[in-house]
Amino acid sequence: MKITANNPERKSWLEVAENSDFPIQNIPFGVFLTKEDITTIGTRIGDYAIDLGALHQLGYFEGIPLTEDMFMQDSLNDFISDGRKTWRLVRNRIADIFDVNNKALQNNTKHKEVVIFEMDEVEMLLPVEIGDYTDFYSSKEHATNVGMMFRDPENALLPNWLHIPVGYHGRASSVVVSGTDIYRPKGQTIPADSKTPIFGASKLLDFELEMAFITTDVNHLGETISIDEAEDYIFGMVVFNDWSARDIQKWEYVPLGPFLGKNFASTVSPWIVTMDALEPFRTKSPKQNPQPLPYLQQKGKHAFDIHLQAAIQPEGEEETVVTNSNFKYMYWTMNQQLVHHTINGCNVRSGDLMGSGTISGPTPDSYGSMLELSWRGSKPVKLNDGSERKFINDNDTVIMRAYCQNDKIRIGFGECKGKILPTK
Amino acid sequence: MKITANNPERKSWLEVAENSDFPIQNIPFGVFLTKEDITTIGTRIGDYAIDLGALHQLGYFEGIPLTEDMFMQDSLNDFISDGRKTWRLVRNRIADIFDVNNKALQNNTKHKEVVIFEMDEVEMLLPVEIGDYTDFYSSKEHATNVGMMFRDPENALLPNWLHIPVGYHGRASSVVVSGTDIYRPKGQTIPADSKTPIFGASKLLDFELEMAFITTDVNHLGETISIDEAEDYIFGMVVFNDWSARDIQKWEYVPLGPFLGKNFASTVSPWIVTMDALEPFRTKSPKQNPQPLPYLQQKGKHAFDIHLQAAIQPEGEEETVVTNSNFKYMYWTMNQQLVHHTINGCNVRSGDLMGSGTISGPTPDSYGSMLELSWRGSKPVKLNDGSERKFINDNDTVIMRAYCQNDKIRIGFGECKGKILPTK
Repeated sequence: MKITANNPERKSWLEVAENSDFPIQNIPFGVFLTKEDITTIGTRIGDYAIDLGALHQLGYFEGIPLTEDMFMQDSLNDFISDGRKTWRLVRNRIADIFDVNNKALQNNTKHKEVVIFEMDEVEMLLPVEIGDYTDFYSSKEHATNVGMMFRDPENALLPNWLHIPVGYHGRASSVVVSGTDIYRPKGQTIPADSKTPIFGASKLLDFELEMAFITTDVNHLGETISIDEAEDYIFGMVVFNDWSARDIQKWEYVPLGPFLGKNFASTVSPWIVTMDALEPFRTKSPKQNPQPLPYLQQKGKHAFDIHLQAAIQPEGEEETVVTNSNFKYMYWTMNQQLVHHTINGCNVRSGDLMGSGTISGPTPDSYGSMLELSWRGSKPVKLNDGSERKFINDNDTVIMRAYCQNDKIRIGFGECKGKILPTK
Repeated sequence: MKITANNPERKSWLEVAENSDFPIQNIPFGVFLTKEDITTIGTRIGDYAIDLGALHQLGYFEGIPLTEDMFMQDSLNDFISDGRKTWRLVRNRIADIFDVNNKALQNNTKHKEVVIFEMDEVEMLLPVEIGDYTDFYSSKEHATNVGMMFRDPENALLPNWLHIPVGYHGRASSVVVSGTDIYRPKGQTIPADSKTPIFGASKLLDFELEMAFITTDVNHLGETISIDEAEDYIFGMVVFNDWSARDIQKWEYVPLGPFLGKNFASTVSPWIVTMDALEPFRTKSPKQNPQPLPYLQQKGKHAFDIHLQAAIQPEGEEETVVTNSNFKYMYWTMNQQLVHHTINGCNVRSGDLMGSGTISGPTPDSYGSMLELSWRGSKPVKLNDGSERKFINDNDTVIMRAYCQNDKIRIGFGECKGKILPTK
């Protein structure tokens, strides 16, 4: 089925600012709360939030097999379970409804009143109920930087890294939507040259610039999938900040991996941009050498050219962009991550979240964490207000953004934003 | 409020075999499917499954504040959210209903027909919808054994182990109820003296003898709890088999911890035995030296004397008990685990599952995994049928059991059982 929603020539009758992340070619999915306290599934065009529950009730999705309450839910999980064909039908239909040449809704004031809201009238919620959250570690530049800092600069990558899309389980309960304030975590840390830990607020609070993808139901326990079908199971992507307390992490993580150094919070952007919308931005991923084992081999373009940035905004000051990276730098593709995750029969469900790991580019101004940008605190990062940061201060807001751009359209993700409050 | 359900003198009008895990003093909670395909919340006395949904509809819980559909659900999460006072009221009431001196239900044949089933007429389901599953690593004997085998026998415990109840995030989707068959996982492993991994079925499949506790809603993001209130948030316990593929785990786990070596399956026993029922079996935990940081310090008895065993049953043969351990050996208590888990503000919800980690005792016949029992395969374990095991073979069933016993009563958990099928 053709992705007619992607037609770059199409214009909407809703106003869309020139540099908007949300032209009619995007049509992401999210969940929001209206001023009337109604939770609904919606999409966004320009600065308008569109209530898909209301649209469906009014008959605009006629002919598409959807349960009556499909969009009147507080998560996208059931819609995502419906599979790629349904996602595409719905997205194509939304593009038609808001096409400048379609007068049906455009000329129906009563319908428009219950369907269309201004973005600042609604509150964005977490778009999915996350059954399990997994975080990978798939940027070679990031893994190399960390290996150089903490292990041997000559053997920065661990032996398994080029063979396995290394990943670990994260905490689903503490994944929050953009805009949620985060309290600086407390915990045990080990002072330099001491063998006895101390207790207190983390002093090395960091962000990790990531993207994450959201899956549909992939497999039952004990089943595997092939790499060529992996993409069918990926619904879409969000920007992802895997907040990290480096000092807590350092003391706890051997031998079972990060735990309290990470699970105090992770922030996602509210709109899931579909893989269909990202289709025009497919690109090649870095060459893999050595060649991975056959179950991970795939030909063709499976990376996506997504510009990423992270900014720090001190309280009451303007923001400073501290890094510019790109999702295409990832050594391991999402398909490889998903096939690896299920190769042992582990079951993946609708609404599961898979983080990329910190996405660092090849140059120091494209590193994806303060740990790398300040090189363990040895090179403080200058902000526009004259202050410096080695890590994140109390009352700093970290803002991440992601967008794709070609000569015809820009498809963006909006913001993934969180403010650090002092320890509670 | 008194736990009248624990009265050791009480007899039930339902028949209970002398050595049953489920006397009227137990009253665990679970979820089952009836022959009529109805899912309900229930309890168990002797070999009878009791439909609490039906009991509630018939008015037997009058006076206890419960929503009408509280027990007509497919998980215990909402009931667990109601908190300790409600759990206790319901358990006390059930004890009354089935007390030999209470004729109300006993003499009502029509009611009994819809309330009471024989255990072999029902199918046990997973008792909770697990939001997040965390596994700890809290047996000093186990951590020491692993450290001796894989690291330095002279410095077997890592520096953080005596200060932190070390834990990591597991996979919630693949936690299954006792009786579910498990397919042997495939994956990458690294042959001895090779730098290049190979692909195939795991050759070193193991069990881990654990207990796990289930929480109610503990805290909101950013909040912490004190150690003295921790116990209020623990609903009950189950037997837990954290299946492990040692060869997959070995190649993947540095630096982010176990992933595919564990997440192909974990098995829980179906009945959650409440902390109230375990109250008579409170005991002291091992002395902690060095003293932990103040947020982890607690006086009194916070361990529980729970006998544990694991058996291997080859296909068509009788079982062989391969280890006898005890939950009281745990160095870190459940209260310490829960306080540590939330000390950074990580939110814990109703239905979350927290595994103890492998529970090994001080002697070689009390070790909690084949890895330790066969000492990495160097000392094969003899079975009653004459065969030997270093690890678990295809078509072997692993059966774990747990029970408490004093001079008056026995409170048991039933079986936590899983059969390993050949790779799919």
